[in-house]
Amino acid sequence: MKQPLTARLKALREQRLRTRNYRPGQAPGSLQATGHDDAPDAVPARISLLRYTPEGVSRDAPDVAAADCRPPVVDSMDARLDVAWIHVQGRPTPEQLQVLGAAFALHPLALEDVLHREARAKSEAFDAQQFVVLDHLGAAPEGGVSLNQVSFFLGKNWLISVSEGPPGLFDPVRKRIRSAASKICEYGADYLLYALADVVVDSGFPLLEDLGDRLELLEDEILAGSSPETRNRVHYARRELMQMRRAWWPQRDVIAALMRDDSRFLSDTTRLYLRDCHDHSVIIIDFVETYREMASSLLDLYLSAMSLRLNDTMKVFAVIATIFLPLTFLTSLYGMNFDTDSPWNMPELHWRFGYLYVLATMAVVAAGMLAWFRRKRWL
Amino acid sequence: MKQPLTARLKALREQRLRTRNYRPGQAPGSLQATGHDDAPDAVPARISLLRYTPEGVSRDAPDVAAADCRPPVVDSMDARLDVAWIHVQGRPTPEQLQVLGAAFALHPLALEDVLHREARAKSEAFDAQQFVVLDHLGAAPEGGVSLNQVSFFLGKNWLISVSEGPPGLFDPVRKRIRSAASKICEYGADYLLYALADVVVDSGFPLLEDLGDRLELLEDEILAGSSPETRNRVHYARRELMQMRRAWWPQRDVIAALMRDDSRFLSDTTRLYLRDCHDHSVIIIDFVETYREMASSLLDLYLSAMSLRLNDTMKVFAVIATIFLPLTFLTSLYGMNFDTDSPWNMPELHWRFGYLYVLATMAVVAAGMLAWFRRKRWL
Amino acid sequence: MKQPLTARLKALREQRLRTRNYRPGQAPGSLQATGHDDAPDAVPARISLLRYTPEGVSRDAPDVAAADCRPPVVDSMDARLDVAWIHVQGRPTPEQLQVLGAAFALHPLALEDVLHREARAKSEAFDAQQFVVLDHLGAAPEGGVSLNQVSFFLGKNWLISVSEGPPGLFDPVRKRIRSAASKICEYGADYLLYALADVVVDSGFPLLEDLGDRLELLEDEILAGSSPETRNRVHYARRELMQMRRAWWPQRDVIAALMRDDSRFLSDTTRLYLRDCHDHSVIIIDFVETYREMASSLLDLYLSAMSLRLNDTMKVFAVIATIFLPLTFLTSLYGMNFDTDSPWNMPELHWRFGYLYVLATMAVVAAGMLAWFRRKRWL
Amino acid sequence: MKQPLTARLKALREQRLRTRNYRPGQAPGSLQATGHDDAPDAVPARISLLRYTPEGVSRDAPDVAAADCRPPVVDSMDARLDVAWIHVQGRPTPEQLQVLGAAFALHPLALEDVLHREARAKSEAFDAQQFVVLDHLGAAPEGGVSLNQVSFFLGKNWLISVSEGPPGLFDPVRKRIRSAASKICEYGADYLLYALADVVVDSGFPLLEDLGDRLELLEDEILAGSSPETRNRVHYARRELMQMRRAWWPQRDVIAALMRDDSRFLSDTTRLYLRDCHDHSVIIIDFVETYREMASSLLDLYLSAMSLRLNDTMKVFAVIATIFLPLTFLTSLYGMNFDTDSPWNMPELHWRFGYLYVLATMAVVAAGMLAWFRRKRWL
Amino acid sequence: MKQPLTARLKALREQRLRTRNYRPGQAPGSLQATGHDDAPDAVPARISLLRYTPEGVSRDAPDVAAADCRPPVVDSMDARLDVAWIHVQGRPTPEQLQVLGAAFALHPLALEDVLHREARAKSEAFDAQQFVVLDHLGAAPEGGVSLNQVSFFLGKNWLISVSEGPPGLFDPVRKRIRSAASKICEYGADYLLYALADVVVDSGFPLLEDLGDRLELLEDEILAGSSPETRNRVHYARRELMQMRRAWWPQRDVIAALMRDDSRFLSDTTRLYLRDCHDHSVIIIDFVETYREMASSLLDLYLSAMSLRLNDTMKVFAVIATIFLPLTFLTSLYGMNFDTDSPWNMPELHWRFGYLYVLATMAVVAAGMLAWFRRKRWL
Repeated sequence: MKQPLTARLKALREQRLRTRNYRPGQAPGSLQATGHDDAPDAVPARISLLRYTPEGVSRDAPDVAAADCRPPVVDSMDARLDVAWIHVQGRPTPEQLQVLGAAFALHPLALEDVLHREARAKSEAFDAQQFVVLDHLGAAPEGGVSLNQVSFFLGKNWLISVSEGPPGLFDPVRKRIRSAASKICEYGADYLLYALADVVVDSGFPLLEDLGDRLELLEDEILAGSSPETRNRVHYARRELMQMRRAWWPQRDVIAALMRDDSRFLSDTTRLYLRDCHDHSVIIIDFVETYREMASSLLDLYLSAMSLRLNDTMKVFAVIATIFLPLTFLTSLYGMNFDTDSPWNMPELHWRFGYLYVLATMAVVAAGMLAWFRRKRWL
Repeated sequence: MKQPLTARLKALREQRLRTRNYRPGQAPGSLQATGHDDAPDAVPARISLLRYTPEGVSRDAPDVAAADCRPPVVDSMDARLDVAWIHVQGRPTPEQLQVLGAAFALHPLALEDVLHREARAKSEAFDAQQFVVLDHLGAAPEGGVSLNQVSFFLGKNWLISVSEGPPGLFDPVRKRIRSAASKICEYGADYLLYALADVVVDSGFPLLEDLGDRLELLEDEILAGSSPETRNRVHYARRELMQMRRAWWPQRDVIAALMRDDSRFLSDTTRLYLRDCHDHSVIIIDFVETYREMASSLLDLYLSAMSLRLNDTMKVFAVIATIFLPLTFLTSLYGMNFDTDSPWNMPELHWRFGYLYVLATMAVVAAGMLAWFRRKRWL
Repeated sequence: MKQPLTARLKALREQRLRTRNYRPGQAPGSLQATGHDDAPDAVPARISLLRYTPEGVSRDAPDVAAADCRPPVVDSMDARLDVAWIHVQGRPTPEQLQVLGAAFALHPLALEDVLHREARAKSEAFDAQQFVVLDHLGAAPEGGVSLNQVSFFLGKNWLISVSEGPPGLFDPVRKRIRSAASKICEYGADYLLYALADVVVDSGFPLLEDLGDRLELLEDEILAGSSPETRNRVHYARRELMQMRRAWWPQRDVIAALMRDDSRFLSDTTRLYLRDCHDHSVIIIDFVETYREMASSLLDLYLSAMSLRLNDTMKVFAVIATIFLPLTFLTSLYGMNFDTDSPWNMPELHWRFGYLYVLATMAVVAAGMLAWFRRKRWL
Repeated sequence: MKQPLTARLKALREQRLRTRNYRPGQAPGSLQATGHDDAPDAVPARISLLRYTPEGVSRDAPDVAAADCRPPVVDSMDARLDVAWIHVQGRPTPEQLQVLGAAFALHPLALEDVLHREARAKSEAFDAQQFVVLDHLGAAPEGGVSLNQVSFFLGKNWLISVSEGPPGLFDPVRKRIRSAASKICEYGADYLLYALADVVVDSGFPLLEDLGDRLELLEDEILAGSSPETRNRVHYARRELMQMRRAWWPQRDVIAALMRDDSRFLSDTTRLYLRDCHDHSVIIIDFVETYREMASSLLDLYLSAMSLRLNDTMKVFAVIATIFLPLTFLTSLYGMNFDTDSPWNMPELHWRFGYLYVLATMAVVAAGMLAWFRRKRWL
Repeated sequence: MKQPLTARLKALREQRLRTRNYRPGQAPGSLQATGHDDAPDAVPARISLLRYTPEGVSRDAPDVAAADCRPPVVDSMDARLDVAWIHVQGRPTPEQLQVLGAAFALHPLALEDVLHREARAKSEAFDAQQFVVLDHLGAAPEGGVSLNQVSFFLGKNWLISVSEGPPGLFDPVRKRIRSAASKICEYGADYLLYALADVVVDSGFPLLEDLGDRLELLEDEILAGSSPETRNRVHYARRELMQMRRAWWPQRDVIAALMRDDSRFLSDTTRLYLRDCHDHSVIIIDFVETYREMASSLLDLYLSAMSLRLNDTMKVFAVIATIFLPLTFLTSLYGMNFDTDSPWNMPELHWRFGYLYVLATMAVVAAGMLAWFRRKRWL
C-alpha cells in the first residue's frame, strides 16, 4: 500500500515547480541553454509550417528548418488573410530561436522567456509582435498534472507557436484548416491565435472532470470507512489544485487582457470570439475554487470520520473491560483464604450450590451491564 | 441508516457539476448534439408562442413549430409594444435552434451556449439581440438541488426564452399577461425579460428557506445529541451551499450589469424594476454567505459536542475501573498463602468477623471514592 | 440546564431570518397582505403627525388617519422649513400605504418594500422622494436580537417614517422638536431624517456593549473552568454577531451613500452631520468584526481548555491504575499454590514477618511510583 | 499561578473597548459630561501654551487658563511662522472645550468627538480648521495596552492638541522647539502637527518590540514544554494584537489622507515629511499582521505540543499496564486450586524449582516486551 | 535532537524583525548612529567607484574615500552615457553619508532611511534623485534567512548603491560592465539600476528552490512517519515564508511603480526591461503563496498522521489488554476456595485433565478474540 504512494510522490517531484532557470546577475535576453537539463535539449524541436488563404492551404510542410521560415511577403491588398503558421513542437534550441528571431524581428526578452520556460501566463505587446504565453496542464503519465508552456508570437499575417505540450495538441485545429470550409481560413492570424488559445484553455476541462470524479469517489470512500491512503489521496488532489490555480489564474487574466486591450494585431471579430474563450477560463477558475473548497471539506469529513471510528472502537474495548471488572472481583473475592472455621467467614464457600450461585450472579451482573450500556447507547 | 445516505449520494452525483460539454479543439459556434447524453435529447423541446399588445393577447399558441416563429413585422409607430414571446421548454434540438437562429438572426456563439448548457450566468450584447443566461436552481426530486440553465434572447419587440427548468416555472407570468390589466402588456419585451428574470431569481427563496429550516433542525439535533448522520447532513448542506454560491454570484453580477449597462434593448423603466430584482439577488447572496458561516459553525459545534460526549462516556468507564482497583487489590491481598502459623502473618484471616470487616472496608473505600469523584465533578 | 437552552433556541427561531415574503412570479409593486402572518396585521399601524417651523411646533397629532396626511402646501419662500413628519408606528395595512402613497406620490416599488419588509438597508432615489431603509436591531424580550425594518420617505418638506421597532424609539427626537430651542426645527426635513437615522444607528451601541460584557464573562468562565453551557453561549453570541453583520454592513453603505450622493433632497449641512452618523456606523462595524474574532478565539480557548481538563482527569485515573498494578501483582504472586515442601518454592510464605515484609514492599513501591510521577509532573 | 491571570484579566477589562459614550437620540454636538465616568473628570485638564517664531520661543506658559488662549493675531506678512501651540493634557471639561471652541471657532461636532472620546482615528476638514484624531497605544501599568485618544485642531498659525496619553509624551518635541536650532521653528503649525503625529505613530514601535520579544519567549516555552499558562499568554497577545489592529488600521488611513488630500492647512514640505510618517505606520501594520500570523501559528504549535506530550505520557502508562498483564496472568494461573492428585493438573507446582522457573519466565516476558516496545518506538 | 533546534532558534532571534531603530520624538532626517548596535559600525563601509561610457570603463577604483565621489561633470551632449556608479558595501557611517549627501544633493530623509535600515522596500521621487530601497534576502549562515537592505540613489548620470548584503552580490554586473560588449555600457545609469535590482530580485529564486526542496523532504518524512522535529521544521519553514512575504510584497509594488511611474530618471527602454524584472517578482510572490499553502497543508497532514499513529498504537495496547481479560478471569475463577465436598462446587478441579481443559479453553478464547479483532480490522 505504501509502494504506489512513494512512486507517485517521486513522479510529483519530477514535475515539481521549476525555479532553476534563474541565475541572479545573468544578462537579460541572453539565449544560452540552461545547462542542467541538457538531456531533453539533445533533440532539437520540430518545426512545421502551414500557409493558408481563404481559398485553402497553399503550403503544408510538416518538418522544415528554422531558416526556411520567413514572414509572408505582403504583395496584395488582402495580405492579412495570407497567413503563415509556424509551429515549433518541443523545446527549441537557442540556435533555432535565434534564426526565427532574426527572421521575424522577435524581441530578445520574449525569446528568453520561451527558452527559459518561466511558466507563467502573460501577454506583452512589442513593436513588431504580440507575445502571449499560456500554460497547458495535462495529465502526467506518472499521475498528477504536468505543466507545459505554450508561447505565441502574433504578427500581422503570421503566427509562431512554441509548444512543449503533447505533440497532437493542435491537431484538431490543423484539421479544421485543411478542411477548406473552416472559419479559420476566412479570418486572419489573430483568429488562429484565438483557436489555439481556445484549445489550450479547454484542455483544462478533462483534467477537472477527472479530478471531480476522484473527489466524489473519495467522498464515497470516506463515508463508507476510510484508510490513511484516502487521506493521502485528498492531499494529492489538493496539491494538484494548487498547481492548477497557480497556472490558471494568470491565464484568465491574459485572456481578459487580450479581449480588452487595443492591440493592433487583434481584430474586433476575434475579440468577440475571445469573449467565449474568456468565459471558459472563468468557468475553469470557478471549478478549481469549488473543488478546493470541496477538498478541504472532505478533509474535515475524513478527520471526523476517523475520530468517530476510533472512538467507537475504543468504546467497545472499554465496555468489554468494564464488564470483566465485577466478574474478576467476585472470583477474587472467593479466592480469599479466610479461616472458615468462624461461621461469619465466607459461609458461601460451604453452601451446596455456592459455586453455581456465584456463576449465576456473574451472569446476571454481565447481562445487566450489557443492558445498561445498550440503553446508554455505548454499544 | 446508511441506505438513504448512499442513495442520496448517487442522486447528488447525477446532478453533479457538468463539465463534459467541452471538447478541446472543437470549432466555436458549432451546433452539434453533444452525443453522450442523447437519451434526454430524444424528445424535442416544446415551443409556445404568445403575442400581445397593450390591448391584450393577440395570439396564444401553446405548441408551435420552430419554423412558425418569426419576429413581429414592424408596421406601426408603437411597434415596440407589439411583443412576441417565444418560449422553448426543454432542451432544444440543434435543428430547432438553427431554425430559430436563422429567423431571428441569433448569434452562433449564443446558440452554442444554449445548446451546450455551460451553466454560468452571463449577459452579452450582440448586434441584433441581448443574450442573457441565468441559472435556475430547484429542489431536485431525489434531494439536493438541481441546476437548470435559462437563456433569453431579447430583441426589439420579441423575446425568446429557453428553459430546462420545471415546466410550470413561468406560468404566473403567462397568467398575468393573459389577464388584460397587467403592467407587462403596457411595456415592451424588455419588461417581459425583467418579469421572467425576477421569477428565476426569486425561485431561490424557497430553496434558502428550506435550507434554513434544515440548518436549524440540525442545530437542535446537535445540541440534543447528534449522530454521524447529522454530520453527513451538515456536509450535504455545505455542498448545496457551494453549488448555490457558484450559481448565484455570477447571476447577481448579470442582473447588476443589465441594470447599469446602456444596452439599447432596455428602457429606463425596466432598469428601475431591475433594481428591485437586483436587491433580491443581493439578499439571496447574503443568505447564502450567512448560511455558509452557520454551516461551518455547526460543524464546529458538532465536533465539540461529539468529543464532549465521548469524554463523558470514557470518564464513566474510568471511574468504574478506578473504583474496582482497590477492591480487587484487597481481595487479592487476602488470597495470599502466607503461612498463618506465625502470628504476624495475616492474623485477620483468623478473626471471627474478618470477612465482614473486609467487606465493610471495601464498601467504605468504594463510597469514599464515589464521593471524591463527585466532588471533583468527574461523575 | 438544558431547559433554558431549548427555550432560547425556540425564541431564536421565531426571530429567524425571514424569507417568506417572496413568491416567485408575483407582480412587482403589488400591495397585498402577505397572508401567512395575518395575526400581527390585525391591528393597523398608528400614524402620528408632527408639523413644525423654526418658530416651533404648529401641529402635534398623536393619532391621525392616513387620509388626513398630506404634504404641506408650499405657500411661502421658506417652505422648506415648514416640515411635516408623519410617523407610522407598527406594520401598516396595504390600505394605509395606498392612501399615503396616493397623497405623497410614493413609488409603488418602495411601498412594496415597506409592506414586505425585505430587511436589507438601502437608499433609492425616486423622482418625487428619497427612499431609505434601515435596520433597527434591538434586544429581543426572549433573548437574542430582533431585527426591525425602519423605512423613510424624504420629500422636499416632509418625511414619512415607518418603524416596526420599539414604540418609544424616536421619542428623544420628538422631545427635542417640542422643546423650541432644538436645531432640528431650524433645518429642514433632511436634518430630521439624519436625526432619526442617527437614533437607529446608535441603538447598536447598547447591543454591542451587552455583547462585549457577555464575551468577557464567557472568557472568565472558560479560564476558570467551563461547561458545555459555556460553549453553547459562545455559539449563540456568534449567531447574534452573524445577524448584526448581515444587518449593519449594508446600513453602513447606505449612510455612506447618503453622505456622498448628490440627492437634491439633502442639504450640505445635513451631509456634514451624516458624516458623524457614518463614523458611528463604521465604529459599530469595527466592533462587530473585533467581537467576531474574539468569539472565535474564545472557541479555540474553550476547546483547548476542555481537552486540557479532560487530559488532566484521565492522567489522574491512569496514575491510580498504574500504582495498583505492581501491588496487585505482588498479592497475586503470593497467592500461587506452589508446593512449599521444596525450600526453593516461595520460602517467603514461611517467614515469620513475610506478610509484613510484603506490606512494606508494597508501601515502598507505591510511594516510589508517586514520587516518580510527581517528578515527571504527571500529577 | 491562577492569581496573576485573573488580576491581569481585570486590568484588561478596565481598559476594555469603550462603547458607553453613545446615547441614542442625543443631540449631536452637545457638550455634556458623559456622567458615568465623572471621577476622572474631577480634575480639569492642564493647558500649556508655547508660542514660537523662527527666531525662537516667544512665550512658554506651562499652565494657563482656557480663557487666556487665543489665536495669534496676524500682524505681519510671515504670520504663518508666528505659531501658537496650545496643549491640553488630560480630559478637558466641557467648559474648557466651550471656551477654546469659542476662541478658535472650533466646530461643535469636533468638540463632541474630543469630549466623548470615540477612539477611532480620523481626519476631517472644517472651514476654520483641520481636525485630526489619532490613537496612542501605550503599555498599561497593569499589563496589556491602553488606548488614549490624541486630537489635533490645526489652524492657519496655531495648533491645539488634546492628549489623554502619558503626560511626557510630547516632551521631546517641546525640547526640540526650545532648542533654537530646530527645524520645527522654521516651518509653520502644520509641521508641528507632523512632528506630534510622528511621536504618536512611533510610540507603537516599543509596544511591538515588547510584543515580539514575548512571542519569541512563548515560542521557546512551547518548544521546551508548555503549560496552560503559556496558552493563556498567547491568548492575551492575540487580544492585544486585535486592539492594535483596530487602532492602527484607521490611523494609517488618516496619515495617508493627510499626505494626499489638498487641505489648505498643510504645506507641500510638511506633506513630504508626512510620507515618512506614513511609511512608519505602514511598517507598524506590517508588524501587527505578521505578529498575528505568528501568534496563531504559535497556538497551533502549542496545541500539537500539548497533544504530543499527553500522548507520550499515556503511552508510558499503557506500556507499564501492558507489561504487567502477562505477569499477573501467570501468578493468577498458579493460584488455581486444581486437584493436584492428578499428574496432569499443574505438575509445575510440585517441581523443586517451580517458583524460580515462574519468576524467570516472568522476567523474560517483561524484558521481551520492553525490547519489543522499544523497537516499535513506543517507549 | 533538541540541541540544533535551540541553536537554530537563537540564530533566528538574532536576525529577528528589527524595530529598534525608532525612537519616538526624534527629529526626522537626523543622521546619528543608532548607538545600541555600535559593534558592527566600528568598520566603516567600503566605497568603490566605477565610471564607464559606451566605449568602456574609464575608471575602476575598488576602494575610494567618500570625499572623492562626485557626480560626473556634464561636459558633452551624451553626458547621460558617461555613468558613475558608486557602490557602498556595508553599513556606512553617518559621516560617510553626510559627505556623499552633500556632494550629490541627497535628501536628508532618504539618507536617514539608509542609516536606520527600516527594511521595507519603497521608491520615492525627490527633486534631485530617485530613491529606491529593496530587500535582499539571503540564506543566513546559521540557518534561516537574513534580510539586508539595498538602497539606490539614481541621478541623471550617476547611481549610488548601498548594500549590506553579501559582498560579492553585484560582482556579475561589475564583470559584465568590464567586458566591453555589455548592454549596460550602452544605456545610462537607469539601466544599471535595473541590472542591480534584477540581481536583488532574482536572488530570491535560490532561496525558494531550497525551501521547496525542504518542504518536499518534509512531505516525504511525514508520509513515512514523522517526529516532533518534523513539525518544528514545518514551523520554521512557515516563519521563513512569513519573512519572505513581508519583504517581497512591497518589493513587487516598488518594481511595478518604477515600471509605471513617469519618473524622469528612467528611460522607456529601461522600463521595458523592468517589465521582465516585475514578472520575476510576481513569480516569486506566486511561489511564496503556493509554499505557504503547502506548508499549512503539510501541518494538517502531520497532525492527522500523528493522531493516526497514536491511535494505531493505542489500539494495539487495547487489544492486548482485552485478550488478557477473559484469561485472567478464568484463572481467577479456579482460584476460588469453594468447599469442594459438594459435588456442585467446582467439580472441574477434580477432573483428571481439568488443568489442560482450562489451558485449552484459554487458548481457544485468545485465538477467537484475535480472529475477531482481525476481522474487525482493529489489528
